[in-house]
Amino acid sequence: MKVRNSANRTRSSLGDVGEERLLQRILPALPSSSAVISGAGDDCAVVRFGDSKKLLVLKTDCVVERVHFTSDAAPTGVGWKAMARPLSDFAAMAAKPEFALVTLIAPAAVSTRWVTELYRGLAKAARMFEVAIVGGETSGTDGAMSVSVSITGAVAKDRWISRDGGKANDELFVTGTLGGSIRGRHLRFIPRIEEAQWLAQNFRITAMMDLSDGVGADLPRLARASNVGFEVDDAAVPRTRGCSLAEAISDGEDYELLFAVAPRDADRMQTAWRKRFHKLRLTRIGRLVPHSGFRVPSSFRGYVHFR
Amino acid sequence: MKVRNSANRTRSSLGDVGEERLLQRILPALPSSSAVISGAGDDCAVVRFGDSKKLLVLKTDCVVERVHFTSDAAPTGVGWKAMARPLSDFAAMAAKPEFALVTLIAPAAVSTRWVTELYRGLAKAARMFEVAIVGGETSGTDGAMSVSVSITGAVAKDRWISRDGGKANDELFVTGTLGGSIRGRHLRFIPRIEEAQWLAQNFRITAMMDLSDGVGADLPRLARASNVGFEVDDAAVPRTRGCSLAEAISDGEDYELLFAVAPRDADRMQTAWRKRFHKLRLTRIGRLVPHSGFRVPSSFRGYVHFR
Repeated sequence: MKVRNSANRTRSSLGDVGEERLLQRILPALPSSSAVISGAGDDCAVVRFGDSKKLLVLKTDCVVERVHFTSDAAPTGVGWKAMARPLSDFAAMAAKPEFALVTLIAPAAVSTRWVTELYRGLAKAARMFEVAIVGGETSGTDGAMSVSVSITGAVAKDRWISRDGGKANDELFVTGTLGGSIRGRHLRFIPRIEEAQWLAQNFRITAMMDLSDGVGADLPRLARASNVGFEVDDAAVPRTRGCSLAEAISDGEDYELLFAVAPRDADRMQTAWRKRFHKLRLTRIGRLVPHSGFRVPSSFRGYVHFR
Repeated sequence: MKVRNSANRTRSSLGDVGEERLLQRILPALPSSSAVISGAGDDCAVVRFGDSKKLLVLKTDCVVERVHFTSDAAPTGVGWKAMARPLSDFAAMAAKPEFALVTLIAPAAVSTRWVTELYRGLAKAARMFEVAIVGGETSGTDGAMSVSVSITGAVAKDRWISRDGGKANDELFVTGTLGGSIRGRHLRFIPRIEEAQWLAQNFRITAMMDLSDGVGADLPRLARASNVGFEVDDAAVPRTRGCSLAEAISDGEDYELLFAVAPRDADRMQTAWRKRFHKLRLTRIGRLVPHSGFRVPSSFRGYVHFR
């Protein structure tokens, strides 16, 4: 990539600044409309659509060769991951995914079998959550392969959950176990769509997100969006077998749910969860605290994109 | 890209088969739903959304470095093109675009200025058509840069136009002039959103699409979808200044409208067009004919992806 630097004297690259900080600068100035309820910054966008009682939910995401999958990864796994990542963002908002569009960027030399298997993985993940794949585009490239998936879906007006509703004293929970996803789970994880909808329908979930960059990076984001601090009990963080605490916190790509629940719902929720989802662990890892009470464990170091 | 070839003995690559043929094989087997009115194959997907009277329209597209833009192209032009291409697909269906999501895949070395200018181009095109940009994702890569844009919008139930409604004797028109887009127009073309909606509201437009691969490749697609043949008057094809007939037919990236109109609306439409859009040429280039009457000019050679 040729870095253009004609008029500005101070060079800075995406790698120096970081994608998140750069987008935080750019996104607020982009065109919006009165139909937009939640734009860039949350897991999905939420907008009004015509006269519909339901809100329209939108998300796009991509996987890139040598960033999100290795060149020798099984193509069905790559397809699964490409579809499951934006599905996991729908889980984060307790929304129902409905329609998917796929963009494949691939060199001409890729085998038709690879592409067919990729689509098999995409279709398998879509089918599991009753999502229709309504379009597929393909472009050539001389570089790395990538697969982008955009998903559109729906949520009832009073039912969607963002990152920003957390209150001091809400209890913090995560599903599943954290860390070590790179060993294989990142190509076959199950988006927590069903669990998220059940939680939102039955308990006062005040803030929720999916864990993509690791709880060490994602929990501070949830707290910041909710304008509160947090406390985490390091010993309680559920680790995948063989993972250290640092790995559980920083590996990323867990695609589990992280959420805050009103304290008086916490016990009832845990009891009901064990009956409903007895195969999936649910763990209390800490609580939200007033903003002045920041007590971030030193173990919390984030996973940074564009390292 | 490593081409995996473990179990299948007959090697075939995306380049051999071509993206269009491969997707034609794969897409029909993908999961669908009763809400899908028009899936993959037309310019946009059209689906039902909840209880809304309007239909939801979906499209995703991408531009890739060294395929759709050169590495030294002005980033505002790249952004403009990335947004305007899917907008042009909305024009093709006479639908109203409303919300856009952007995915940027870029190496860490790209300058923040480049990314900022890219978003300036994206925003400019979105603003022109009152489209809100509701999300932006970024991923690293070690390869070519790419920008994917997904657009969601609406169309009235009885107002959308597909490629497949053309009838024998319908007259064929194109907007603007064709050919030579690569000299610069491909980075600043105007999607024919306004013109398409005006046409659909006032005349019997039976089939429509936008010209992305050149009329030589796109008109046969429209005819095939409508199950009719076509005749074209080579001399009538409106060429961009300095372009040969072959260039006008095959260069591609015109992003003009190609449409069929019921014969008795054709004169009235041309008169009204000249009043309404006097700066933009509208040219009758031929007509649809019964399927048995195929008369494809020898000058019609398509522009093929993955050359």
